[in-house]
Amino acid sequence: VRLASLLAPDLEETLKSNPLHAAELAEELHAADLAEVIEGLTDETAVAMLHALPPPVSASALDAMNHAKRAELFQKLERPFAVQLTELMSADERADLFQALPAELRTDLLGRLTKEEQRDVRELLRYPETSAGGLMTTDYVALKPELTAERAIDEVRRTAAEKETIYEAYAVDPNGTLLGSVSLRDLVLARVGQPISTVMNADTISVPPDMNQEDVARIFQRYGLLALPVVDAARKMLGIVTVDDVVHVMKEEQAEAIQKLGAVQPTETPYFETDFWVFVRKRAPWLMAMFGGEIFTATILERYSWARAANQAIEVFVPLILSTGGNTGSQSSSLVIRGMALGEFGVGDAVKILWRELRMGMVLGGMLGLFGFFRVLLVGHSGGGGLALAVGLALIANACFGAVVGSGLPLLIKRMGYDPAVSSGPFIASLVDVLGIGIYVEVAIWVLGLSHPGH
Amino acid sequence: VRLASLLAPDLEETLKSNPLHAAELAEELHAADLAEVIEGLTDETAVAMLHALPPPVSASALDAMNHAKRAELFQKLERPFAVQLTELMSADERADLFQALPAELRTDLLGRLTKEEQRDVRELLRYPETSAGGLMTTDYVALKPELTAERAIDEVRRTAAEKETIYEAYAVDPNGTLLGSVSLRDLVLARVGQPISTVMNADTISVPPDMNQEDVARIFQRYGLLALPVVDAARKMLGIVTVDDVVHVMKEEQAEAIQKLGAVQPTETPYFETDFWVFVRKRAPWLMAMFGGEIFTATILERYSWARAANQAIEVFVPLILSTGGNTGSQSSSLVIRGMALGEFGVGDAVKILWRELRMGMVLGGMLGLFGFFRVLLVGHSGGGGLALAVGLALIANACFGAVVGSGLPLLIKRMGYDPAVSSGPFIASLVDVLGIGIYVEVAIWVLGLSHPGH
Repeated sequence: VRLASLLAPDLEETLKSNPLHAAELAEELHAADLAEVIEGLTDETAVAMLHALPPPVSASALDAMNHAKRAELFQKLERPFAVQLTELMSADERADLFQALPAELRTDLLGRLTKEEQRDVRELLRYPETSAGGLMTTDYVALKPELTAERAIDEVRRTAAEKETIYEAYAVDPNGTLLGSVSLRDLVLARVGQPISTVMNADTISVPPDMNQEDVARIFQRYGLLALPVVDAARKMLGIVTVDDVVHVMKEEQAEAIQKLGAVQPTETPYFETDFWVFVRKRAPWLMAMFGGEIFTATILERYSWARAANQAIEVFVPLILSTGGNTGSQSSSLVIRGMALGEFGVGDAVKILWRELRMGMVLGGMLGLFGFFRVLLVGHSGGGGLALAVGLALIANACFGAVVGSGLPLLIKRMGYDPAVSSGPFIASLVDVLGIGIYVEVAIWVLGLSHPGH
Repeated sequence: VRLASLLAPDLEETLKSNPLHAAELAEELHAADLAEVIEGLTDETAVAMLHALPPPVSASALDAMNHAKRAELFQKLERPFAVQLTELMSADERADLFQALPAELRTDLLGRLTKEEQRDVRELLRYPETSAGGLMTTDYVALKPELTAERAIDEVRRTAAEKETIYEAYAVDPNGTLLGSVSLRDLVLARVGQPISTVMNADTISVPPDMNQEDVARIFQRYGLLALPVVDAARKMLGIVTVDDVVHVMKEEQAEAIQKLGAVQPTETPYFETDFWVFVRKRAPWLMAMFGGEIFTATILERYSWARAANQAIEVFVPLILSTGGNTGSQSSSLVIRGMALGEFGVGDAVKILWRELRMGMVLGGMLGLFGFFRVLLVGHSGGGGLALAVGLALIANACFGAVVGSGLPLLIKRMGYDPAVSSGPFIASLVDVLGIGIYVEVAIWVLGLSHPGH
C-alpha cells in the first residue's frame, strides 16, 4: 500500500514527460508491485502505462491486478491491443478476466483468440470460482511417459516460458489420461537414459474439478504440495492448481471468516477503498435481522410485567444472565466452526458434539452460577436467598442452552450447504436472548413461588 | 482422520504377526499419512513401528508428526536410535523437537550430534517459534556465484537429498553473505557456460529472523514465492522459509483466529482429542472476565431503580438496546481486525478509522433507532411518545458507542503488542453493556423529565 502511494505520483509525472523512462522504471518492479502502482493511477494514465510497457510486462502486471480494476481498464483498451495482452496472460487469470467483462466485450475478445485458447477459456469458465476447477490453470507441462529424463528436461526447457510451473510435470497417455507426476527434482536426479515412467509417482494425488477450494487447500497443507492435478471421472487431465493460488485462497478465506464471525457480509476490497455506503449495505441487513430477533426480548419482558412487579429485583439480573448464554454459545460456535474448517469432523458427528457441549455448558454454567448466587446474596440491596438461587439456576440453564444452540447452529448451517462461519457470536447471542429471558423469569417464578395475579 | 482410524488397527495386527510386512505396508504411505497412522498407535506399538521401518522413512514420518506425540515417543526410544533419527530429520523439525524435549534428554541428544548439527539446532532455537527465524530451516542450497549453470546443477544434484527445497538456490560469498537467488528454472533454462552470477536475481527479497510469521506469509502471498531467504543485519544467510511452512502457518493462524473471535483461548489439538477439562481451562477465564464485567450491569440497574420505578417500561427495552451496541461493535471490531490482518492499515490510522466508524454508527444507529421508535410507539402496552423518543435516541447513541469501542479496542490491543483478534464480539459486547445501560437510562431520564425522589 505504501509503496504504490509513493511511486504512483512519480511514475505518473515521468510518464507524461518521458514515457520510455517511465516504462524502464516500471519494468524494474516485481509484477505484484507494478500491479499495485497501476491500480493507483487514473484509468487514462494506467492505459497509457500498459501501452508504454513491453507487452509481457503489462500482461504479468494484469495477472497480479485487482480483478475489478482490471476489467475496468480492459474496457478502455483498443481491441487488438487487448487481445494481444489476453494472449500473454496466464490461462487462469485470463479466464477470471473474461468472467468479469461485459458480455459484448467478452464475446468479441473471445472470438479473436486462437481455437485452443478459446477452448481453454471455456473449459476454465465451466467451474465455480471457489472450486478446484475455478482455481486451476491449463498451462502445465505434459510429457509422454516413454521420454527419457534428459529428453523430458529438454521438453520442459522448450515450453517453460508459457507454463505456470515447471517444478511438477505430468505423464499423460495419448488420450490425455494422467499416468503420474514427475517433479523437476526427480528429472534432475534421474540416471542417464532412465525413462520417466520409472521416475514418476504413479500414485499421484489428484482431485475432481468440483472439489471445494477449502478441501483443496487442506490437501496442499497435508502433503506439502507445490501443484495438484485436476482430473475428470476418467482421470483425464483438466489442469493443475498451484500453491501460490492456494496461499491466496487461504488469505482470502481468513479475511472472509473474520468478517462473517463479526456478522458482516464479506467485502473483498480494502477497508479504505470500500465505499462508506457499501459497508452500510454489508452491515445493515445483519444488524436488522439481529434487531428483529431482539425485539422479542421486549415482548417477553412486557408479558412478564406481573412477575417483575411482584419482585422488582428480577429484572436487575437480565443482562447478566443473557450475556452468559450468548458468550457460552459464541465459544461453542467458534469451536465447531474451527473443527469443520480443519476437517476434524462433519455434520455426522452432531450428536457427539452436542452432548459434549451440553456437559461443557453445565460445568461452565455451574461455575458462573455459583458466582452469580453469591453476588445476589451478598452484594447490593436486591438480594434474598430465593432470588439468588433463581439467578444461579438460570445461569446454569442459559449456559447449557447457549452451548447447545452455539454448537448446533453451525452444524445446521453446514448441513444446509452454507458457510458455518455466519453463525457468529452476535448472531448466536441474538438467538438465545429471547428464550434466555423466558428461561430466567420462569425459573424465578418457580423458585420464588410467584403466581400470576389474573389466576 | 478417517484414513488413520482405518489403517491403524490393521497395521497394529500385522506388526505383531509379520513386522517386515507391516514395514512394507507403511512405506507405501505418504509421510503425512504414515505420521497420522503412527499417532493413532499405542506408544509401544509406535516405537516398534519406528524401529521396523527404514530409518529415513521413520524420520520423514516424524517430520510430519504432531509435536506433542513426537516428543512423547522420543522419550521411549533407545538413545543411539533416537540420535540416528534426529540426524535424518529436517533441520527445522529437529529444532522444534529439541524444544519440546525435557532438558535432560535434550542435552544428552544434542551432545551426540555432530558439531555442525549442534550449531544448526542452537541457531534455530534462538528465535521465537512464530518468527521467520522460528520457521526457517538451515537445509538450503548455497552456491558459489562463479559456478556455471551446469556445474551448479551438478552441485544441486549432489546435495539434493538433504535439502528442504532445490527449486531455489542462493549464491553466497565466502563469508556467507547473500548475493542473489537462482531458481532451478533459471538454471535449467540458462545457456551453456553461463555463470550463475548472470542468471541470479540479485534483488532477491529477504527478511530478518525476527519478522512475524504473519508478515512472512503476506510476502509469500504477494510475490507468489516458493522460498524466502532469512538474513541478519549484514545480509549473512541464516536460513530459508519454504512455502509449505507458510501454508501450515496460515491454516494454524486461521484456526487460532476463529477461536479468539469466539472468546476461547486457542488450542492446537483437534476438538475430540482435546481433553474436556482443557477446554474448561481455555473457556472459563474468558467467561469469568466477561461475567465480571457484566456484573456491573446489575449494579447500574440497581442504582437506577428509582427511574425504573417511575416508569416501569424503561427496563423492557434494556436487552434490545444493549445488543444493538454490542452487535455494531462486533462488526466494527471484525473490520478493523481484518484490515490489520491483511496489512491494509496500522495503528497510525486510528483517528481516520474511529471517525469513519463513528459516522457508520450514526447511520446504522439512525436506522435501528427509527425502527425502535415505532416499535415502542405502536406495539405493546408500554408505549408513549416520550419513551419512544428515548429508545430511539439511546439506540443511536449505543450504536455510535459500540462502533467506537469496537474499532478502537483492536487498535489499542495491537498497539500494546497483542493479537487484536482477542477483541472478539462477545468481549466488545461485555465492555459496552455497562456504559450502554447508563447511556440509555440517562437519555430516558432526560427525555421523560424524571427526577430522583431524593433530590
